[in-house]
Amino acid sequence: MPEPDVERLVEDARAGRARAVGRLLSLVEEDSPALRRAIALIAPRTGAAHVVGVTGAPGVGKSTSTSALVGELRRRGRRVAVLAVDPSSPFSGGALLGDRVRMGEHATDPDVFIRSMASRGHLGGLSWATPQAVRVLDVAGFDVVLVETVGVGQSEVEVAGAADTTVVLLAPGMGDGIQAAKAGILEVGDVYVVNKSDRDGAAQVRRDVRSMLGLAQRPPGAWKPPVLGTVATRGEGMAEVVDALEQHLEWSRRSGALELRRRRRAREEVEAIALAALRRRWAGSTDRDRLEDLAGRVVAHELDPYAAADRLLGD
Amino acid sequence: MPEPDVERLVEDARAGRARAVGRLLSLVEEDSPALRRAIALIAPRTGAAHVVGVTGAPGVGKSTSTSALVGELRRRGRRVAVLAVDPSSPFSGGALLGDRVRMGEHATDPDVFIRSMASRGHLGGLSWATPQAVRVLDVAGFDVVLVETVGVGQSEVEVAGAADTTVVLLAPGMGDGIQAAKAGILEVGDVYVVNKSDRDGAAQVRRDVRSMLGLAQRPPGAWKPPVLGTVATRGEGMAEVVDALEQHLEWSRRSGALELRRRRRAREEVEAIALAALRRRWAGSTDRDRLEDLAGRVVAHELDPYAAADRLLGD
Repeated sequence: MPEPDVERLVEDARAGRARAVGRLLSLVEEDSPALRRAIALIAPRTGAAHVVGVTGAPGVGKSTSTSALVGELRRRGRRVAVLAVDPSSPFSGGALLGDRVRMGEHATDPDVFIRSMASRGHLGGLSWATPQAVRVLDVAGFDVVLVETVGVGQSEVEVAGAADTTVVLLAPGMGDGIQAAKAGILEVGDVYVVNKSDRDGAAQVRRDVRSMLGLAQRPPGAWKPPVLGTVATRGEGMAEVVDALEQHLEWSRRSGALELRRRRRAREEVEAIALAALRRRWAGSTDRDRLEDLAGRVVAHELDPYAAADRLLGD
Repeated sequence: MPEPDVERLVEDARAGRARAVGRLLSLVEEDSPALRRAIALIAPRTGAAHVVGVTGAPGVGKSTSTSALVGELRRRGRRVAVLAVDPSSPFSGGALLGDRVRMGEHATDPDVFIRSMASRGHLGGLSWATPQAVRVLDVAGFDVVLVETVGVGQSEVEVAGAADTTVVLLAPGMGDGIQAAKAGILEVGDVYVVNKSDRDGAAQVRRDVRSMLGLAQRPPGAWKPPVLGTVATRGEGMAEVVDALEQHLEWSRRSGALELRRRRRAREEVEAIALAALRRRWAGSTDRDRLEDLAGRVVAHELDPYAAADRLLGD
């Protein structure tokens, strides 16, 4: 493959050309050598987008909720990008057809961009690739970038928690309260949404979550995550959700929480890039021989794995 | 928590005491500071166990197959450990009750040890924790360590592929052939098992897999993965599977493949330990300040994330 013209791609992405945005996201997914140059051009131009994480267990209606959120944001004139992240899938994100079917009505809207992304064996998985993909969508001028994660594993929670604002989706009849507490999602949510609120038990889930969040104990000035109800299939309650997202962004700006959150995201990004660089170095010819030799000595019981790791690090 | 008496734990584990084995596995899960000392004692005494990876998509009957495999191995007098690895779950592995229910008849057999393990936010997830857990079970004198992974994501395939022998489970009616090819599991299997072979289409799945494996093209002396049929719920075909596992081990020893495979596992283990050590270092006070400072400069657009990573690595 010829070296991509990164300057041109970034220019085109900034001009809102979906093809260029897609190509840049592919560079992220492929961990392309050109990525470094692209990110160097992109990074100084980012920070305008509102990055919203959306997470929740399978079955809560995540895709429908995301689609309904997009609908409400579009009604308010926002340009919206959706990054659907699946840490458990090794499959490529080029699943364009699937993405289009999935987002139905928004598929032909030029101000909506949808992309699935898979982990593709990145070290540290998506915690590494996601911030970079978000940068690409940010530089392309989307007002809101929705990062939707599948599942409620640790990595999903981490990916969602790295957003400016995190929406945790729940639904009645799934033993959600306890599941949520276990999975640690009660620590990452800025806005809680009980979807399928036309079903029995929805009010109870909202009460449970409210009581688990211990809102009463929060100090004055702290953010008190609202616990809202929606019926995403009918678009009900979405306006309140988008209001809450905007209030949270506003509060975050004022309180300094946004700056802190973005620093944390940058810290994780930098750390992950550094680790990936080291790994690449170790896979290079000289270092690979050294690593092979160390591994051989571990198998031969001449070194224990920790002592071998010390030597690899030159300690 | 008091510092665990690691020498004693390792002694007790070697004497076959399940409690000590469980405690050592908890040290692995918790990434305990005592782990280093434990592994230094354990590593030189490992290498006797046959490490068998078991992987396959949800719905192929993985738990039932593992349980039936345990049954056949017990009939042959082997001591068996099962490590059920779930990369998508952040929950602890102490799910003893679940494990016991799951393995039904084997729950009270003192020569069968069963443990679930979750990733718990390890960097590099289970690719790091699994080799260490396997070492613990190896030193405890189990003849066979079955490493069962849930799902067919990249990480599951990697975990399973790091075994001495890898069993890939399939079942009719799941579009398995193509799924398997996509997920890369046709590259890691040493033994293929089409479960639910009493159902329609099972013979076709076996033919498809055989043809996709391109067995005819393999050079003489190479391992030709058998494609077997089972009905795990009735224990049918399990003897052939265990025969194939033993033949593969035998072939691996003779051909040198076993040594290569174990070196690769050690290489990944050493690399992962080194990366985790670095990460811990970066979380330490001095380095954390530096990382915070770099992250702040990335957010302020003074540095791009790659340049910040270079500085973190001292380049």
